[in-house]
Amino acid sequence: MEPTVPDDFERMWAALAPVGRSASSGGYFRQPFTTAERELDAWFTEQAEARGLRVERDEIGNVVAWWDAGHGPGVLTGSHLDSVLDGGAYDGPLGVVSALAAVDALRERGVVPARPIGVATFVEEEGSRFGIACLGSRLASGSTSWDDARELRDREGIAFGDVVAGGSSALLAGVATYVELHVEQGRDLVDRGAAVGVGSEIWPHGRYRLDFAGEANHAGTTRMEDRVDPMLTYAMTALAANKQARLAGQRATFGRVEVTPNGTNAVPSRVTGWLDARCATDAALAELVGAISRQATERAERDGTTVEITPESVSVSVAFDPELAATIAADHAGGDWPIIPTAAGHDAGILSAAGIPTAMLFVRNPTGVSHSPAEHAEMPDCLAGVAALADTLERLTR
Amino acid sequence: MEPTVPDDFERMWAALAPVGRSASSGGYFRQPFTTAERELDAWFTEQAEARGLRVERDEIGNVVAWWDAGHGPGVLTGSHLDSVLDGGAYDGPLGVVSALAAVDALRERGVVPARPIGVATFVEEEGSRFGIACLGSRLASGSTSWDDARELRDREGIAFGDVVAGGSSALLAGVATYVELHVEQGRDLVDRGAAVGVGSEIWPHGRYRLDFAGEANHAGTTRMEDRVDPMLTYAMTALAANKQARLAGQRATFGRVEVTPNGTNAVPSRVTGWLDARCATDAALAELVGAISRQATERAERDGTTVEITPESVSVSVAFDPELAATIAADHAGGDWPIIPTAAGHDAGILSAAGIPTAMLFVRNPTGVSHSPAEHAEMPDCLAGVAALADTLERLTR
Repeated sequence: MEPTVPDDFERMWAALAPVGRSASSGGYFRQPFTTAERELDAWFTEQAEARGLRVERDEIGNVVAWWDAGHGPGVLTGSHLDSVLDGGAYDGPLGVVSALAAVDALRERGVVPARPIGVATFVEEEGSRFGIACLGSRLASGSTSWDDARELRDREGIAFGDVVAGGSSALLAGVATYVELHVEQGRDLVDRGAAVGVGSEIWPHGRYRLDFAGEANHAGTTRMEDRVDPMLTYAMTALAANKQARLAGQRATFGRVEVTPNGTNAVPSRVTGWLDARCATDAALAELVGAISRQATERAERDGTTVEITPESVSVSVAFDPELAATIAADHAGGDWPIIPTAAGHDAGILSAAGIPTAMLFVRNPTGVSHSPAEHAEMPDCLAGVAALADTLERLTR
Repeated sequence: MEPTVPDDFERMWAALAPVGRSASSGGYFRQPFTTAERELDAWFTEQAEARGLRVERDEIGNVVAWWDAGHGPGVLTGSHLDSVLDGGAYDGPLGVVSALAAVDALRERGVVPARPIGVATFVEEEGSRFGIACLGSRLASGSTSWDDARELRDREGIAFGDVVAGGSSALLAGVATYVELHVEQGRDLVDRGAAVGVGSEIWPHGRYRLDFAGEANHAGTTRMEDRVDPMLTYAMTALAANKQARLAGQRATFGRVEVTPNGTNAVPSRVTGWLDARCATDAALAELVGAISRQATERAERDGTTVEITPESVSVSVAFDPELAATIAADHAGGDWPIIPTAAGHDAGILSAAGIPTAMLFVRNPTGVSHSPAEHAEMPDCLAGVAALADTLERLTR
């Protein structure tokens, strides 16, 4: 069968725009194995085949489309197609679409790679359905086992093992290097006036559940001095976390709260808040979380409440291969590309921790907003990203 | 058909204990027109019929069981059978069970009332299902119209008009006086060393929805100084409300919160908190809510967020008939009963505001805890309440 002519970047981007988009918020709902995400998966296969790439799948949901050029271990690029709930258009898809466009650019330049180039889409990078971020790359790299993953359940109680066949993945067997392009989720590149940057490291981060317990009571009749109100302990802890993170130049967020019984006319018996904390170093993370925990505990003593702090997931810092980053960033026409850290988790972090030399390219985000319908990158910056990725792949496959 | 022998107070109380009780929390879930609440309604009808009372219903869900003694306008007593979510056993049912037991006590004393005595159960007193407290008594007294009530919806979207036939209610047509017995929801009677007290007034109270809006963003990558985080504005407002109420000797509570999108790794776009505020006077309530609103608005300006404050319901103060209270409280064997205010709303407040001379009796609550599984009254105090209600009905129907 004759492959159809592949779309260029702008046409690919336009084709994806409506898929999984909420008419009310303008945000994306592309959870793994939903109709929207499967449509993206089918689109990717079609685009890969239109380029004559060989599509390999594992039984987890990961896909790699190979340009079987040259010989020896390959250079992998790509990203993910899923989104957070009500997320933006760029987080994930920008890396996949740019990878396909970079293959086109190399071919237009007449480049004949000495090694194979693969374009990957890793499944469930956001953890928005089964709760574990980077689930696909964790399974593909062996850092999470199928036995641990099969029983993960979504909010409807459906198990991951019910939607995929599962088992081990051989997709990364022939991979020597991974390069992931991603929209920047901050404003470092805005401050530096650069369209493109290279990743140095991923900050360590952790998610912690804080259970504040008090005594349910009548909101009207209970004297203020007789209350044991966990909402107060929670509120002060949320403010303290923000202050500590600001003072330390780090990040701390309470974005999720659940209240029991959550009635207007009842002092709550329990407030549960989730702390997301990220720092430049493992030591700084431990110190930040320690400081927030101490303030929560002290305030709980004043309020007569209790607070229990449970780490739900803690990831240590990941430094990308510094030589690889230097190789990618150096000696460009417009000068060296800046090398910047990120506080967001990525499949690149998982592959790097699994021992695969890994690099990231970031594309400027004018507002820094991400995980939101307002996430954005300008088209000229996106095209600069494609060119940068093509340059990088060319360097790495000489 | 021969009526069955009516139960005494302790047996009635034991019969109700398991109905709608959560095995995990020990609290009650007796929302209007659920299985548990309908079981209580059937039980009430059975107990009324066992006493030879004539049961009248309206099309709203309110019931009055009449002892058709004497002639002329009647004296109504009773309370409600529904509960808040995860509530206590006493708030509501104590008044209904005590009313039935008081009828028995009058008959044992050989009292022949000169006027009819009715025992009422008003539906949806807590507003836990359709959102408006005292819905049944508001409709029965005409302070809320059926047209306003029919479209009220529960959390599943079911309309009040779908579960009841609706229309106007004639249940209160023959009522000259209302006396509601209720567990105290505070500790005034503990401090006074009295098992029973008489109500003087209901504090004014209001429910206000505060919508705090900011900008959704990535919790990891967004610098603290770039955030527009409505959780911070909410948290500070919750603490400010508590402080203002403490300073003023009034009540303010944030017991209900909803967060959008409520994800651990996202700065929220919106936090909605509900303020419950109650004060000794209408002026004090306006002042308290004004002070909290000002602090919320000032903090929103600092945070770059916005706050919109919507009163959902505001009830002015209700003073019960002072002559009626004095008549009920005076000249008892153990001395006068104390006359105390309450900060809780009651059907008695609705009937009083509608022009029906109304009184309340309160039964001592050792901890003051209410709207909680821990709500309690000692059995001797409950029986003292029954005797006090019987005394009161005897005085009012001579």
